[in-house]
Amino acid sequence: MNRRQFVHSAAMGLGGISLHSAVRPSIASQPFHINGQRLNRQLGELAEFGQIPNGGINRVAYSEADLQAREFVRGLMRAAGLDVGGDTAGNIIGRREGSDREMPSLMFGSHIDSVPQGGNYDGPLGSLGAIEVAKTLAEQEVVLHHPIEVVVFQNEEAGKTGSRAMSGELNPEELSLVTHSGHTIGEGIEIIGGDPGSLENATRDPGDIAAFVELHIEQGGFLESEEVEIGVVEGIVGIKRWRVTIDGFANHAGTTPMDDRQDALLAAARFIETVNRVVTGMPGRQVGTVGQIEASPGAPNVIPGQVTLSLEIRDLEMDKIDRIYEAIERESHELAGETKTQFSLDQFYVSRAAPTDERIRRPIGDSATQLGLSSMRMPSGAGHDAQSMALLAPIGMIFIPSVGGISHSPREFSRPVDTVNGANVLLNTILKVDEELA
Amino acid sequence: MNRRQFVHSAAMGLGGISLHSAVRPSIASQPFHINGQRLNRQLGELAEFGQIPNGGINRVAYSEADLQAREFVRGLMRAAGLDVGGDTAGNIIGRREGSDREMPSLMFGSHIDSVPQGGNYDGPLGSLGAIEVAKTLAEQEVVLHHPIEVVVFQNEEAGKTGSRAMSGELNPEELSLVTHSGHTIGEGIEIIGGDPGSLENATRDPGDIAAFVELHIEQGGFLESEEVEIGVVEGIVGIKRWRVTIDGFANHAGTTPMDDRQDALLAAARFIETVNRVVTGMPGRQVGTVGQIEASPGAPNVIPGQVTLSLEIRDLEMDKIDRIYEAIERESHELAGETKTQFSLDQFYVSRAAPTDERIRRPIGDSATQLGLSSMRMPSGAGHDAQSMALLAPIGMIFIPSVGGISHSPREFSRPVDTVNGANVLLNTILKVDEELA
Repeated sequence: MNRRQFVHSAAMGLGGISLHSAVRPSIASQPFHINGQRLNRQLGELAEFGQIPNGGINRVAYSEADLQAREFVRGLMRAAGLDVGGDTAGNIIGRREGSDREMPSLMFGSHIDSVPQGGNYDGPLGSLGAIEVAKTLAEQEVVLHHPIEVVVFQNEEAGKTGSRAMSGELNPEELSLVTHSGHTIGEGIEIIGGDPGSLENATRDPGDIAAFVELHIEQGGFLESEEVEIGVVEGIVGIKRWRVTIDGFANHAGTTPMDDRQDALLAAARFIETVNRVVTGMPGRQVGTVGQIEASPGAPNVIPGQVTLSLEIRDLEMDKIDRIYEAIERESHELAGETKTQFSLDQFYVSRAAPTDERIRRPIGDSATQLGLSSMRMPSGAGHDAQSMALLAPIGMIFIPSVGGISHSPREFSRPVDTVNGANVLLNTILKVDEELA
Repeated sequence: MNRRQFVHSAAMGLGGISLHSAVRPSIASQPFHINGQRLNRQLGELAEFGQIPNGGINRVAYSEADLQAREFVRGLMRAAGLDVGGDTAGNIIGRREGSDREMPSLMFGSHIDSVPQGGNYDGPLGSLGAIEVAKTLAEQEVVLHHPIEVVVFQNEEAGKTGSRAMSGELNPEELSLVTHSGHTIGEGIEIIGGDPGSLENATRDPGDIAAFVELHIEQGGFLESEEVEIGVVEGIVGIKRWRVTIDGFANHAGTTPMDDRQDALLAAARFIETVNRVVTGMPGRQVGTVGQIEASPGAPNVIPGQVTLSLEIRDLEMDKIDRIYEAIERESHELAGETKTQFSLDQFYVSRAAPTDERIRRPIGDSATQLGLSSMRMPSGAGHDAQSMALLAPIGMIFIPSVGGISHSPREFSRPVDTVNGANVLLNTILKVDEELA
């Protein structure tokens, strides 16, 4: 019962493949391998849906390119021997039963929608990598204890809509938000074949899913600069965002002496410097960013009377985010005094940190080692569908290097050898988790 | 020949007025007075052209409100006994001959156009104050040695178009600039009855004008905070403006560690602080302002890759502006190094400083003293039509306090007693200058 049903296959039933079938590796000692050439070829094929002249991808959720790419992915799933369906939220799910019909499923996958002017790795790697893993298992005729569910979540980029519907977090009010496609999320769900009126049917119970594993590009430059091949994600950072409004007094830049000014932009400059100093002044990998700023009235000859800016803080620990914020907020009072301005800080967004589970982390690290790959534990600074899934099951994430740390850009790129490494780690992780959770 | 023709008049020929006709003051010892009630009533009447609900004025050049106000002003000039005409640039000029037909004219006046959402004192005070002075002279039957020309320049606020046409500075290319009225400057000149095709006819020769005097609100808070009634302007500050572009690298705010960032907004913040430190670190009344800022791509979760901002420096000495700029520019190299960004600074605007002439400054100060008013020498931080006129003639400017130092705002206000003080100083200054330059 605790042993995988394993059928030796020299015939390789599904298409021309090149597994090490001559020397079938033992699960315990020798790692399995996916078909790397096939994976990279399919990544290239998927990149044609929504390709833009600068080499990037514009495949926002619910767009024509998204619809076509979804059809392409369904075909790949069918070719991998999966039973392809979906839920009322419009997530694509390819299922195959395991040897034990009573067990909850092992779920793995990602998304295929992109940001506007995005790249072809953020989402596609984890989606096609998961299908490739399923196909390899089928080709090798490996039947797991658990059922497997390969998932392609819808609209990750503009709100993790699909995975949040699955975890029961989706707020019905979000259905009326207009997305980059021009459609509301509600309209989008209908367009992709879901049913916005019965999203509750897409919500899964915690007992349904044994584990969720997501392969993804790092989107940062840590693995590359450390020359490490695999990132074992410790968790997905929490995020809090604030809207900061600084009120000074707009006045004539020629007639108002320096010491009579209530310059909201000078106060903003000191605030931005303070954010940097507080965030970098503590040990750890926390980040703090001011990404948006607007000064009004906004003329070269008028002292800015009001500045609004965004503050974002991310860390694996929500408590640390709060401690950093409190230090910044405290200093803003001093800045207000010295610049004769007023600060108001209003939190408008929070995304809870989602730690990964040691029961998935360890198999990821072990799989990398077995494959001869270097690995390192690290946080995920970006949000992912795995974050939603953490409400339902233990989660794990596998990162591969992003060249130059660039993402959400047509210049996003991961080397073919790394995409293959990542999918190989996913494959062996699934095998180990299947064994350990059985 | 060096004595003013003076006719005693108890009859008061022009309308109901209340001059001290019983005790006619000697020019040398006793000051003349304008009709303060009338001046303030007319300022109120002028404020109706372009009045907006918040109490301010929207009377941008070439608008319907501007046209109506110009008609109103022509009527006041005629009632003051002036011969009303204009030049091909659309400036309104009311002239009266002096006793000596050979002499160049004494010119005084200002403008009546406003910024969008402006106030009713910036321009109107000097325009209606000048007409009131002319009317008082007529009522008192004072004939000066010099001819007088009361001028209302057109489009001061969006480029000093009228006065720069008079000084020969107007660039023909400016005629195609679109103004707040929606009309180009060229169209605007036609609308107000000028001839954009023969602007050279509006240009005056230096020998034409003996002196130019402008009464204006301070637009800053210096006189008010010093509790001084009259400002004797030492000169109009020079202005230089630069467009500063800071190039960093836009990247994911979640996945890019703090020490890997090339954050253009952090660099901008330090630049803004540097501008403030350098400008306030030298003795003097120089000002330096960053009024505009734009960060792109401009999202809370993206590190800004590029920031553009404006830098403006003003001082009475152009050399000092350059010294301040050089210090800032030098420090920007260090900032670029420490933030891994690139700075480029491009000067896009220069307005030369225009010193006033001691032959006008002294009579202004003496007139204030004679009227029992406190006065103080000060720079003008704002640009004025007098700046253009400095190319043609010795200039002088009289400032009165602006309540709260507020200008270019519906909250712009000067107390009635101060508008009257200013016009009284203008009247007596004109009398003294007429005497001294004759």
